[in-house]
Amino acid sequence: MKETWSFLDTFEPNFRPLVVIELAKGTKKETIEWFTKRIVDKKANGGAQLLIKPLVTENGDENIYLVGASQLRLLLGAETVGLVKECNDNSMRSFTYSSRKTFKDFADDNQNFLTMSECQYIIKHELENLRAKDEKMIPGYPQAKLYPGKSIVRRLLTNGILVQIFPLHDREELKKLRHTWYGRVKIGYQPLDEIRSYFGETIALYFGFLEYFTFALIPMAVIGIPYYVFAWEDYDKYVMFATFNLLWSTVILEVWKRICAVMTYRWGTLLMKRQFEEPRPGFHGALGINPVTGREEPVYSSIKRQLRIYLVSVPFVCLCLYFSLYVMMIYFDLEHWALDYHEENNSTFSSLMLYVPSIIYAVVIEIMNRIYRYAAEFLTSWENHRLESSYQNHLILKVLVFNFLNCFASLFYIAFVLFDMKLLRQSLATLLITSQILNQFAESLLPYWLQKRHVKKIKKHTHSLKTEMDLSLVEQVNLEKEMGTYFGTFDDYLELFLQFGYVSLFSCVYPLAAVFAVLNNITEIYSDALKMCRVYKRPFAEPTANIGVWQLAFETMSVISVVTNCILIGMSPQVNALFPDSKMDLVLTVALVEHLLLAIKFVMAFVIPDKPREIQIKLAKLEFESLEALKQQQMKLAAESLKE
Amino acid sequence: MKETWSFLDTFEPNFRPLVVIELAKGTKKETIEWFTKRIVDKKANGGAQLLIKPLVTENGDENIYLVGASQLRLLLGAETVGLVKECNDNSMRSFTYSSRKTFKDFADDNQNFLTMSECQYIIKHELENLRAKDEKMIPGYPQAKLYPGKSIVRRLLTNGILVQIFPLHDREELKKLRHTWYGRVKIGYQPLDEIRSYFGETIALYFGFLEYFTFALIPMAVIGIPYYVFAWEDYDKYVMFATFNLLWSTVILEVWKRICAVMTYRWGTLLMKRQFEEPRPGFHGALGINPVTGREEPVYSSIKRQLRIYLVSVPFVCLCLYFSLYVMMIYFDLEHWALDYHEENNSTFSSLMLYVPSIIYAVVIEIMNRIYRYAAEFLTSWENHRLESSYQNHLILKVLVFNFLNCFASLFYIAFVLFDMKLLRQSLATLLITSQILNQFAESLLPYWLQKRHVKKIKKHTHSLKTEMDLSLVEQVNLEKEMGTYFGTFDDYLELFLQFGYVSLFSCVYPLAAVFAVLNNITEIYSDALKMCRVYKRPFAEPTANIGVWQLAFETMSVISVVTNCILIGMSPQVNALFPDSKMDLVLTVALVEHLLLAIKFVMAFVIPDKPREIQIKLAKLEFESLEALKQQQMKLAAESLKE
Repeated sequence: MKETWSFLDTFEPNFRPLVVIELAKGTKKETIEWFTKRIVDKKANGGAQLLIKPLVTENGDENIYLVGASQLRLLLGAETVGLVKECNDNSMRSFTYSSRKTFKDFADDNQNFLTMSECQYIIKHELENLRAKDEKMIPGYPQAKLYPGKSIVRRLLTNGILVQIFPLHDREELKKLRHTWYGRVKIGYQPLDEIRSYFGETIALYFGFLEYFTFALIPMAVIGIPYYVFAWEDYDKYVMFATFNLLWSTVILEVWKRICAVMTYRWGTLLMKRQFEEPRPGFHGALGINPVTGREEPVYSSIKRQLRIYLVSVPFVCLCLYFSLYVMMIYFDLEHWALDYHEENNSTFSSLMLYVPSIIYAVVIEIMNRIYRYAAEFLTSWENHRLESSYQNHLILKVLVFNFLNCFASLFYIAFVLFDMKLLRQSLATLLITSQILNQFAESLLPYWLQKRHVKKIKKHTHSLKTEMDLSLVEQVNLEKEMGTYFGTFDDYLELFLQFGYVSLFSCVYPLAAVFAVLNNITEIYSDALKMCRVYKRPFAEPTANIGVWQLAFETMSVISVVTNCILIGMSPQVNALFPDSKMDLVLTVALVEHLLLAIKFVMAFVIPDKPREIQIKLAKLEFESLEALKQQQMKLAAESLKE
Repeated sequence: MKETWSFLDTFEPNFRPLVVIELAKGTKKETIEWFTKRIVDKKANGGAQLLIKPLVTENGDENIYLVGASQLRLLLGAETVGLVKECNDNSMRSFTYSSRKTFKDFADDNQNFLTMSECQYIIKHELENLRAKDEKMIPGYPQAKLYPGKSIVRRLLTNGILVQIFPLHDREELKKLRHTWYGRVKIGYQPLDEIRSYFGETIALYFGFLEYFTFALIPMAVIGIPYYVFAWEDYDKYVMFATFNLLWSTVILEVWKRICAVMTYRWGTLLMKRQFEEPRPGFHGALGINPVTGREEPVYSSIKRQLRIYLVSVPFVCLCLYFSLYVMMIYFDLEHWALDYHEENNSTFSSLMLYVPSIIYAVVIEIMNRIYRYAAEFLTSWENHRLESSYQNHLILKVLVFNFLNCFASLFYIAFVLFDMKLLRQSLATLLITSQILNQFAESLLPYWLQKRHVKKIKKHTHSLKTEMDLSLVEQVNLEKEMGTYFGTFDDYLELFLQFGYVSLFSCVYPLAAVFAVLNNITEIYSDALKMCRVYKRPFAEPTANIGVWQLAFETMSVISVVTNCILIGMSPQVNALFPDSKMDLVLTVALVEHLLLAIKFVMAFVIPDKPREIQIKLAKLEFESLEALKQQQMKLAAESLKE
């Protein structure tokens, strides 16, 4: 077949497949020819200058292509995407091809200077930036309109001609990573740097945060255990625990920023310049002039979007919130019924029945959260945001508000309307534990089992051909293309966020929550690692410098928890006993303490620098150098101009 | 005399004096020769390549020099300091000499392309960046040590050889500005663009803020008047006024950010890149290696500074706070005594006497504020901060904490300990009005009167020489060098900050405060304008993009005022009457409302974008263009590399 691909003569002998492109079955020949030509074409002609090779499967289908690139091409691409690498003098700098010799571990024959995930990120970037020149449509598909500057890959994706693009796993590396990550039973840190070089910064940062958060919860868990064991209910001990909790949660969130800065500095993403954001794939609109770029591209009126948001999305979210509260009231009816039943019968069975409503409710909450998630995604996508970041922010806001209410409304109701601390403790425990079990199951174990079954089926199918090395690649691609897609860290952060809510909002009522959270997170690390390595397709690396909007979400939660804990302590009989004469004084004291704690929180957040001193100095040094370079250049120019 | 200045042969015929340098009387000749040579020397030789001319006064002293520069030199300097100017296509861009033709109003013979204050700013920057090469000391002054890279001007200043550097007024321009600014009685906006081109951005921004703040207070004043006139004391009207106030204060602070962005975009400072910050003049330490620049320069241990801050400054501030509270208690004794006296005598005199303690206390507060200000400056300077910005932040923090307590402690005491609303209203009125009168007097009228007397004296002295144009310059320089120095907008902002406190903290008790604030601010605009134009030396322009830490200070004040107003409303008899049975419910309701208001405030601050959409688009456009340019450059490079 190779003869047809006349422009593929540039094949390097050591072609290393990095990224897989799967086209729809039955894609027209002229389309394939045009697309592959654009991919291998010279940069000067508007191509991506990458290497491409068709993957011939046993049934002769030719809709899967492997993409690679020469080492030089990758290095130039690293400059384009703005990768930051370590120099020989241990400072981090933007990589440029002309200064390549000054970088650590650089050698013209060193294929490992760029990690495989970096190479794949570069190829993805180059493919996405392959833009239409004067084509009016995709050849062979007149309905797939193009205009100058439109990303070809995005148009192919939205028209279903391109099924998917995904990076290949590196079986060797993955095995090593699995071994150091979760292969052996050990107490210790995760190999975050290895995770980062295999999966990219976003995922490594999630695992870093998960690990950090787990460690940070340990002091709370350790202090919480004796409260449970000895059933401490003294006033002073309670207040101490809650105060510690509140200040501690502020401290850990501030310290995380510093740790995050250290990590992302080492990875280079802290210094990476923001790229100009392209419209997200789903964005549509009438062709118009973009006021920022001056290019002709789809434009969608911001007023129309606002109308959609405020007239449809907001009412819908409110309706969902109302529905969630309605379900909550049904739960309380059930709870009431179970209590009556227990009082009538008073058997072991009936006492077990007491837990049933909570468990049912926890399951219903999880189901509602998941259904709402789809609705929120649909709505946000219908709002037609131009940028991925704006889409994400609107989605996160929608999901956070609903999940917060859905998960915590019943607890707030029990605590501040029913004033039933015993029920609160019981509900909290049931909700926390049930949701953790459900999550672990739905997120990792179920997909893992499905995936294992699938692998077995494939292996059985291709059993006879298994020996040859080349076919093993075919096998690998076939296997990986059927794997599920990892849709980003959203759900994982959301889970942690809700867990943080369970731990901190009512911490002084149920000190054991932190213990469960720690236990869950330890297994979570393992199951998430399993999920990343075994269940999903390898995701593209995504450079990032921080956990973004989640930092704000966690901080908001910790502010709310100051309020709830202060009220809870104020309501406890032990504290009430201290103010026998005047409830007024009690309420005023609680309000005063609450305001003081909030003030301390804000001052602490203000005083603790977001970046450690050494990172600050390194950043200042870089800035100074670039300013100096600019000044030198200007001085030279000035000297020349003044000489004339 | 000209023969001696052989290196001054480059004199342009149209030398325009911009900046005055005053050396100490009796400065050694070799020093003067070396210094002036460095100023006129070529850039390539490490000079500033400016023009300098001695000013020969009638008594033959030669310690005053006028500095100017050629038009070309100024344009190159504009590029060095990173001035941003408007282009022909109405976009704002960093000025570069090579692209000069694309800028609006640029012509090789147009001397007005750069405003005079911009020229003076450039000269100041060039003088401050005149650095020692291999000199070990200032010639003639072995005790004035130099090291490579040390700013010569700063060393001369700290050693007292250089008395002062200041920009010259432009009598013609100033007259025009005075006329449009405050010369005629008119209702309307200030000529902010003209103020900016004469005094620079920092000062124009202060006047812009003052004007904006005054306009923003008008709705509060208008709504407040009927409360006073009709003595409204209904519950609902009070709550409405306070709620309006709280939300309004959030809105005005958010809207200011947008207005500020529009203004500074037009002025170009929003886009100006931050320059690398040099150590401040007063900074001292042992010579060491700066970790950021890698240069040898004074280094001072951060631990020593922390010790000074926490072991000396913090205790001192606490002591001052204690002292301020002590004075407050004396005031309450006086107040008590006055009340007793009035009850005994009950005459017109004794009823007037009732106001005397408040007035005395207001005067004492002002005096204490001013004394403390000196102490704070001394202490902060002794803390030996390396950067001017860090010095300013520590100084502002010290001064704000003390002034806040000093001004408002008595009001808090009256409101929340004595629960005496009548006394609160009276004290508030007295404090506000007295401090406003004192400020207007001490800040503008007194210096104006002193200045006027001084001008008269000088005029009498040089009366006979008044006709010649050249001598008029001598006269002007002599006059201006004796004028007071304007030490920046700190005191002006502080005054507004305290006023904002008087207006918002207890707004529901004394709605008339806003009226007084508006009246004061209208005269304040005039007296501050008078002060800038008539009393002080012209200050160097200081490019700035926002009001900095003051935005935070005002926002903090508005958060505190939510709390105080909620408590005040909760304490009012009208609201108390609504909850006849349970004080508990009252307190809980107040707390709930307060938390709701605070939440609304934060959501509003979050939702209102800091920059208007059009500015956002313009900024995005600029960023896009620079990224495109970079990409083009890289593509060219890549294409070349790949061809090889």
